[in-house]
Amino acid sequence: MSRPLNDHEAIRQQLMDAAEEMVRTRGAINLSLTEVAAACGMSQSSFYRYFSSKEAFFEAIAGRWFEELNQIMEDVVASDLPPREKLFEFVARRVAVKRARFEADPNLFRANMDLGEEHWEVIRGYVDLADHYMAVILGEAMAEGCFPGYDLDHVVSLTNLVMQPFCNPFVMMDMIRTATPANLRIVVNTLFDGLGAAQAIQGAQNVTPLRAIS
Amino acid sequence: MSRPLNDHEAIRQQLMDAAEEMVRTRGAINLSLTEVAAACGMSQSSFYRYFSSKEAFFEAIAGRWFEELNQIMEDVVASDLPPREKLFEFVARRVAVKRARFEADPNLFRANMDLGEEHWEVIRGYVDLADHYMAVILGEAMAEGCFPGYDLDHVVSLTNLVMQPFCNPFVMMDMIRTATPANLRIVVNTLFDGLGAAQAIQGAQNVTPLRAIS
Repeated sequence: MSRPLNDHEAIRQQLMDAAEEMVRTRGAINLSLTEVAAACGMSQSSFYRYFSSKEAFFEAIAGRWFEELNQIMEDVVASDLPPREKLFEFVARRVAVKRARFEADPNLFRANMDLGEEHWEVIRGYVDLADHYMAVILGEAMAEGCFPGYDLDHVVSLTNLVMQPFCNPFVMMDMIRTATPANLRIVVNTLFDGLGAAQAIQGAQNVTPLRAIS
Repeated sequence: MSRPLNDHEAIRQQLMDAAEEMVRTRGAINLSLTEVAAACGMSQSSFYRYFSSKEAFFEAIAGRWFEELNQIMEDVVASDLPPREKLFEFVARRVAVKRARFEADPNLFRANMDLGEEHWEVIRGYVDLADHYMAVILGEAMAEGCFPGYDLDHVVSLTNLVMQPFCNPFVMMDMIRTATPANLRIVVNTLFDGLGAAQAIQGAQNVTPLRAIS
């Protein structure tokens, strides 16, 4: 097989496709680079002309998985939507992409999630990036007076707690029937209207909360 | 080994202990009744004097696991706490038990969760029972005017969505650092103060919500 030299990126994609097909059919455990290379009619030493290491290969696969999701995050954060709407879009648009991928091929989706767990050191950066962007949005909300009485780290952590069925793909798969856009809208509104509401009432109007706790 | 005939329940417990020890050391997959019986110096046919079927055995193991958790649910539902406090206690007391079990032996806890997934038909009844009790508590809250604009099924389903790190043991294990009693208190308050808050403001005072969404 002779290929033009500038075909480098196409061959990289082909090797990643081959790995995806193996993960789809056999699961994520112990994916062998030798077999991935062989599936593309290539020796393992040729493989290393396209990816410098096994880690570089998994980083490229993760990069392909997260590319669209990261673009969504950047677009939403850069938009001039109000913070409440930003948070909704930030989660809703990405969960729609993940849902579509899951529904297109549930086995592949599950296998990719297992691959991610196996290579958590590669995935962690993407999770941290999502937390960072979420913190930017929640920080904008706090600058407008939302979540009185809480610091930003705590608000990020509470948002992650209540959003698991929309952010954690394993929970999403289990709750596909109730983790809907309409329910996400309600959860976002509940968070914005409810988190710190008692403090706000007490602070601003100096009245006791409606429902005092014994 | 001669045992008094009235020792029936003690031998049942011993067989369940043997199964637990196997699950702890080898995981939940393909637990063999023959081996469980052998571990107690018993033939498989003797085993069936104590449990009528494999299903009956797993039901007894599940019954032992859920006994304390069900007792907590019954106690909290029967108490005269206000609904918000009931919901907190309903979740907090059970998550404390599950957390203690997890921390006492993480491998056994994980293996038991896998056993439950493998025998979901046995576990489903317990999950449905928890949903039923939760619905009783949330129904009491609604009778007091909480969650305006929502029906009970929807409130139960939304509560389950936002409570996953406290109700779903797999998520609990992943979020052990942030799924704390203090954060549960905040989530419960956020739900009571926030779910339906916009509707309540609009309905009662005929004003637009503070933060209109474009």
